[in-house]
Amino acid sequence: MLKLTAMIPARMGSKRVPKKNARLLCGKPLLQYAIDVAKDAGCFEEIWVNTESEDLGELAASCGVDFHRRPPELAVDTATNQDFTAEFLRRLQCDFVVMVNPTSPLLRPETVRRFCEYLASDAYDTVLSVLEEKAECFYQGTPVNFRTVEKVNSQDLAPVQKVIWAMTAWRRASFLHTADKGECSVFAGRLGLFPVPLAESLDIDTQEQWDLAEGMLLAKNKVRNQQENIAYWRPSHED
Amino acid sequence: MLKLTAMIPARMGSKRVPKKNARLLCGKPLLQYAIDVAKDAGCFEEIWVNTESEDLGELAASCGVDFHRRPPELAVDTATNQDFTAEFLRRLQCDFVVMVNPTSPLLRPETVRRFCEYLASDAYDTVLSVLEEKAECFYQGTPVNFRTVEKVNSQDLAPVQKVIWAMTAWRRASFLHTADKGECSVFAGRLGLFPVPLAESLDIDTQEQWDLAEGMLLAKNKVRNQQENIAYWRPSHED
Repeated sequence: MLKLTAMIPARMGSKRVPKKNARLLCGKPLLQYAIDVAKDAGCFEEIWVNTESEDLGELAASCGVDFHRRPPELAVDTATNQDFTAEFLRRLQCDFVVMVNPTSPLLRPETVRRFCEYLASDAYDTVLSVLEEKAECFYQGTPVNFRTVEKVNSQDLAPVQKVIWAMTAWRRASFLHTADKGECSVFAGRLGLFPVPLAESLDIDTQEQWDLAEGMLLAKNKVRNQQENIAYWRPSHED
Repeated sequence: MLKLTAMIPARMGSKRVPKKNARLLCGKPLLQYAIDVAKDAGCFEEIWVNTESEDLGELAASCGVDFHRRPPELAVDTATNQDFTAEFLRRLQCDFVVMVNPTSPLLRPETVRRFCEYLASDAYDTVLSVLEEKAECFYQGTPVNFRTVEKVNSQDLAPVQKVIWAMTAWRRASFLHTADKGECSVFAGRLGLFPVPLAESLDIDTQEQWDLAEGMLLAKNKVRNQQENIAYWRPSHED
């Protein structure tokens, strides 16, 4: 049985959406969405919030999860994900760490569970969460997944897979081994790509995306798909 | 001065979201979003709804735009975009046709206007609307716009450009010339890619995306960005 540890990275000093981790999104602090989804998934032996902020540490404790105090030098804008993840992993034993990102508040426990099952196949060193885009894509003016001599239905296109960082798993041993060599460990070893449903894939990086998430949560909380809620415009002959 | 004609394609027989063009989204039929945005953009000499449905034709008329009755054989699932656009263009004189898609109800008049200005540079035969994705992308297991030996900030990645079909412009002459040869005219001639803002890029193809659009419109209609509406979780020492 693999030991999986969840690490939730959180800073108080976010730039584009100030103090976003503490900000209430539909009444709940953004950070708590990640804490709740990690708890509800039920696949982690330990859940840690990795933050320099005493206040966010208190929020973690009040939710019943652990608080890893990030050294202040690793909480500045120039510190990388690799830096603070390596510091965290050097202090903890586990087979895999799963970084659950508070900027993806729409993630559902079931999806985190499926991610952990995928991981438990033990075939990968790094697993990235992706959104599969079934649309024609260009890169530097050149088609990536289609040819301009024919139009194919989008359902039949081979998807481009966009990394969304909602969840990322690293095998502790390979991550630290690569980091210790001074190399990039974010994509270390054998890579797995795990697709996340569109409705859960939003990443909050800007105020525009914050508003979007709010709208999506509002819509999600409405009773839907019920015939009586669907209204149509009526042509005059139906009057 | 180029003559630009807007064509709004609409079928009544949509499969995944039944009768979506007539369905009310936040109180307004989906089709009418496209009609309104085309009118408000103020850059089209003519605006036509291209549909097999008498009812949707009546909706077009009630909004003050023209109704092009699509032959029923071009309104079946197997008929292509190229088929009905060619049939439309053979009947109308213009320099460019701009297809404005009702499945993108979040498109703003200003964006349509900028698209038409881009078009008016007269350098392209086909202009596609795209969403620029500044995220690491894979295609068939291979990185497209990054290298796994280093992690680059997403802001610094070269974007992958995803075609969203919110708006598409075709030069009438080159489109028909290519179609008449029996070739694919959807990507005919010199291609331009026009980036659409994220918040306007949603394409409604499924019930999930319908709900999303509803949520985004709800959020958009809220008063936002006002300091008094931003609430934060408060740590105990602030009580």
